[in-house]
Amino acid sequence: MDILSSRKIVRFQNGVLQDAEDSIVSEHPLTIHLNGEEFATMVCSPENIRELTIGFLASEGFIRSIDEIKDIQIDESKGFAYVELHTQTSTASHEFHSKRFIGSCCGKSRQFYFHNDARTARTSTSKLTLSPSQCISFMKQLQEGSLTFQETGGVHNAALFSADEVIVSRTDIGRHNALDKILGYCIENRIPVRDKVIAFSGRISSEVLLKASKIGVGIILSKSAPTDLAIKLAEDLNITAVGFIRGQSFNVYSHPERIVSGAED
Amino acid sequence: MDILSSRKIVRFQNGVLQDAEDSIVSEHPLTIHLNGEEFATMVCSPENIRELTIGFLASEGFIRSIDEIKDIQIDESKGFAYVELHTQTSTASHEFHSKRFIGSCCGKSRQFYFHNDARTARTSTSKLTLSPSQCISFMKQLQEGSLTFQETGGVHNAALFSADEVIVSRTDIGRHNALDKILGYCIENRIPVRDKVIAFSGRISSEVLLKASKIGVGIILSKSAPTDLAIKLAEDLNITAVGFIRGQSFNVYSHPERIVSGAED
Repeated sequence: MDILSSRKIVRFQNGVLQDAEDSIVSEHPLTIHLNGEEFATMVCSPENIRELTIGFLASEGFIRSIDEIKDIQIDESKGFAYVELHTQTSTASHEFHSKRFIGSCCGKSRQFYFHNDARTARTSTSKLTLSPSQCISFMKQLQEGSLTFQETGGVHNAALFSADEVIVSRTDIGRHNALDKILGYCIENRIPVRDKVIAFSGRISSEVLLKASKIGVGIILSKSAPTDLAIKLAEDLNITAVGFIRGQSFNVYSHPERIVSGAED
Repeated sequence: MDILSSRKIVRFQNGVLQDAEDSIVSEHPLTIHLNGEEFATMVCSPENIRELTIGFLASEGFIRSIDEIKDIQIDESKGFAYVELHTQTSTASHEFHSKRFIGSCCGKSRQFYFHNDARTARTSTSKLTLSPSQCISFMKQLQEGSLTFQETGGVHNAALFSADEVIVSRTDIGRHNALDKILGYCIENRIPVRDKVIAFSGRISSEVLLKASKIGVGIILSKSAPTDLAIKLAEDLNITAVGFIRGQSFNVYSHPERIVSGAED
């Protein structure tokens, strides 16, 4: 399946309505079956479905390593993933899915609102620092690498960088899916993540910040703004959130000690 | 609670890192209790919470009119909504929440993937038509009305228009929330929606298209692109999807018969 398709549309341009062709971004369903039971359905861009499945299960706290997966079968054309784990799944944690994590709302502890996040988000121990020019360069590389976005304006992009280079870049119509694909890639390929960086095309919401924490990085870069809840989570989870990277300027919203002006700036 | 707050940040500009102040968009949790049971938790912009609650319940198929609500209490500071309906809630439909609607996937019928959407989305019978200049003007009004977006780059905006004027405009960090607030407003104020238009700041995904269908309009306008699944749903639900409204041009992706060049164009 392609992530773009061509389609007949009507275009209004130079004062007239006329028939035209346009590139349209694909959106397909993915239903994950876990240990024989229907677990979740999402819509996504139909590529890297295996990574998305692995990343989603890790993000939801069902696996921590690829060794916990006994078997995984993907039926791309129908949009089904069948996963068997070595252990029984706990339906209890499935039920916590959308339940509010009341214990954390007292203002003293972490700003989590969902049980599964409280179980799987982790405090960064990353020692990596970046120079301002690295922040700007990584965001530029993310945007240049994204042809689909330039063609259709319809997808989010995420990329994982080391201090030196891009390691993996993924695209999806769903902001969380793009990050889950990165997480799935790291788990499947046993990539150490502690001293890596995530660059992301969209706004840093609390959910995006939590995904970065679950991936395990210490720095997240974005061309957009974070929310106040994302900043609070970033402070608490020891993550450096850098936003509004545009041209030669940007804002550091949390843990600015990781952004260090070097000799080259 | 405010939907923006001021915050100390570190800004990189003109080659130096320095302390600065910035406006940050708020993101708060909302937990809805329905007939005494915890039903769902979401994060949202903390305004128009009552409308969001009503719109969310309508979108999920639990109510169709304001008369079905016996009592609604909002605790804004803690982010809780307590709703009592005149009828018992069906836990069955709650369980269908994330289950795939397999019956519809055969390609012959509607492109629904979720049970609740199949129950609540409706085919438009709208007779309203718009001229190209109205499409362009409505999108311009949506963007001009959105100060929060201009300040922070962090929210989505949705507005309901009649052929003549804006009826209601709502903002949220969540794209679906902005549309649910519009739906809640229409239900609470018994606004006829058939011959109205939705203008939306974000991309037209399948979920956004379904929200427009649940609100009940015949035309949706956006500055961004739709997905292929959104276009298929729009064709099936008799909704005109207009995207990429930028400057003096735009694209019509489905049911172009509602966009009619008049004498004024």
